[in-house]
Amino acid sequence: MYNKALSELSAGDVIMELNAQAAALAAEIGSENVFNYSIGNPNLPPPPSVYEAIASVLKEEDQTAVHGYGPNAGIREVREAIAGHINSRFGQDLTYEDIFVVAGSCAGLSILLKALAVPGDEVICIAPYFTEYAAFLMAAGAKLVAVDADPQTFFPDVSAIREAISPRTRAVIVDSPNNPTGVIYPLEVLQDLAAMLREKETEYGHPIYLVSDEPYREIVFEGEDLPYLMDLYDDTIVSYSYSKSLSLAGQRIGYLAFSSRIAERKEIIRAVAGAGRIYGHTCAPTLFQRVLLHCIGDTTDVSLYRQNRDLLVGQLEQCGFSFVPPHGAFYVMVKSPIPDAVAFARDAAQRHHLFFVPTDAFGTKGYVRLSYCVSPEMIRRSFPALEQLAKDYGLLQ
Amino acid sequence: MYNKALSELSAGDVIMELNAQAAALAAEIGSENVFNYSIGNPNLPPPPSVYEAIASVLKEEDQTAVHGYGPNAGIREVREAIAGHINSRFGQDLTYEDIFVVAGSCAGLSILLKALAVPGDEVICIAPYFTEYAAFLMAAGAKLVAVDADPQTFFPDVSAIREAISPRTRAVIVDSPNNPTGVIYPLEVLQDLAAMLREKETEYGHPIYLVSDEPYREIVFEGEDLPYLMDLYDDTIVSYSYSKSLSLAGQRIGYLAFSSRIAERKEIIRAVAGAGRIYGHTCAPTLFQRVLLHCIGDTTDVSLYRQNRDLLVGQLEQCGFSFVPPHGAFYVMVKSPIPDAVAFARDAAQRHHLFFVPTDAFGTKGYVRLSYCVSPEMIRRSFPALEQLAKDYGLLQ
Repeated sequence: MYNKALSELSAGDVIMELNAQAAALAAEIGSENVFNYSIGNPNLPPPPSVYEAIASVLKEEDQTAVHGYGPNAGIREVREAIAGHINSRFGQDLTYEDIFVVAGSCAGLSILLKALAVPGDEVICIAPYFTEYAAFLMAAGAKLVAVDADPQTFFPDVSAIREAISPRTRAVIVDSPNNPTGVIYPLEVLQDLAAMLREKETEYGHPIYLVSDEPYREIVFEGEDLPYLMDLYDDTIVSYSYSKSLSLAGQRIGYLAFSSRIAERKEIIRAVAGAGRIYGHTCAPTLFQRVLLHCIGDTTDVSLYRQNRDLLVGQLEQCGFSFVPPHGAFYVMVKSPIPDAVAFARDAAQRHHLFFVPTDAFGTKGYVRLSYCVSPEMIRRSFPALEQLAKDYGLLQ
Repeated sequence: MYNKALSELSAGDVIMELNAQAAALAAEIGSENVFNYSIGNPNLPPPPSVYEAIASVLKEEDQTAVHGYGPNAGIREVREAIAGHINSRFGQDLTYEDIFVVAGSCAGLSILLKALAVPGDEVICIAPYFTEYAAFLMAAGAKLVAVDADPQTFFPDVSAIREAISPRTRAVIVDSPNNPTGVIYPLEVLQDLAAMLREKETEYGHPIYLVSDEPYREIVFEGEDLPYLMDLYDDTIVSYSYSKSLSLAGQRIGYLAFSSRIAERKEIIRAVAGAGRIYGHTCAPTLFQRVLLHCIGDTTDVSLYRQNRDLLVGQLEQCGFSFVPPHGAFYVMVKSPIPDAVAFARDAAQRHHLFFVPTDAFGTKGYVRLSYCVSPEMIRRSFPALEQLAKDYGLLQ
């Protein structure tokens, strides 16, 4: 007498499952012998400004306010600071009312999708997509419509998206720098996407929201200037997280930002609050909300992720693996040398203690995702295992 | 094109709405002239051990682990510590696997109810009940079956609950010390409830879960010894929160504990994890999880709430108001002198700047809830306003 579908869903959380297997194996044979590329958990500490901010908030501010409930949508000064930061950085004209502070971007996306869609509505995701979009849409009762990315570049395929749009399409989710591919969507592709969506909005006479999921915005490797999608498309909602930029993944802090050109944004934000209420979201953790007031715009030293990328990608290349060249985030998507990526990943784990995530759960078969937010030492230690794996599959003599 | 039911639900959050009105009025006429009894936000700071724990965790522990993602169900040592605390305090035999750490008890209850019920299932709440149960059940698609408490004592009416149970009843929620009445359910009533539920379980051949929502367990005024429901009934799930006991309402930390005698507990806990996944729960904030390892079992100085109760209840009595004598939590439920409690609350706010919550949203008409987790100064300052209000309604000459 319980919700069996949810029990099975939980058992199917492949990333958490692989991460747990890797941890169990490390306990058995020593962590130096296990190469856990499964999970996107930042391996850098938060910047010093976060520690200074925590100390200041705990010492200088009214402690019942610091630790008491905050408003559902966030503390007003924090919403103002986030709006101000976006305005000065991206030339927007948001007010605090356009910002909804959330307990991490997973919570934010889940309550946003619940607010945008009713059962039977559709949301387009570009495959491969972050696995959890499927989970959030399950809660909303909405249908995930997967549209394959261009198989050469892994950029959105705008004409395929056009074909997939229906009168029930409420939103299209984009995620750049992308999880799991690590690619950055070019300005022109996003402009084409925006133009096509505008056409479709006119055709149907109702908005189609562009949800820009941006947990990796700060993690770009060649100084790329990522466009701000509110500039390209009026009906844009940005989901941002401090999990990676400030290395605060465990503290659950992020925000939703609504373009001031969204006609129904007040109603949508009220629906987001309603969704938060029924999911028990209550408020984003108030200590870390106040911490943001001190270090908004700071980031951890993301150059270390670039060094990791160079190290890992160099070895993958030397070993003869095919992969999509990653320009941001901390993932590289490697082509499985056999069609069944699940079998390949299982084999890599069993024989060489290399833990990769098959991208099947991301909506694309035939690849594995490697997360390189790990120590450079682990990457170096994994070199012989990667080499042996490549030899097993005939990629290397 | 958005979820209109959720937008309306949000507009109907009466406690948050009244609290916002009180804050707006305070900004206008000065907070010393506004008597905000609307919200249950702890007005005491956390105990010193919380501050020592934060400092220690930030200084002594591995910082990528402190700030990185935790497992969905909580950090293993934290789950072990919670299980150990329950075992030594209440004589249970729980292991870490019986504990699911949550981002506050609202999130915990929402994912628990989603895990226990599928659409069409029923959950019994004893009216007046905490308003948010209705919101969580809306997300689960389950039906809230309200059963009025005994109108004299506001204890559960076991024979009325028996009548309300059907084959679709998945759970009964009890909340003692109670929000909004402040009453503590006596052992004999809970024993009767347990015996009746056992009978019904046998009759239907399936479990009926008793969900014990215990955010106010530590806030009892006459040294009452609250029974631990796992002792009385096998199919018990406890929802606990540190919001009030450690004054950490804003930091979102609590747990679900499953009796080791629940046959399907592993499957249910997996379903809770699945529900957490689709709601974007991810993990409870990891800093405060680790803080718990240092101050589990500590509490803020709850004697101050008793002093507030005595102060407020004394004045209510003097003014001729009828109310349910509160023994715990930090609420007193006052009978509206006119049948329409919403009109009475509106009038009290407009004429005397006294903010009370009508209990209509709690499933019981004709009363208002006063939260006295406020400063004793505010209570004293409100005495003339309470007196005047009593005179307006002919309760006092």
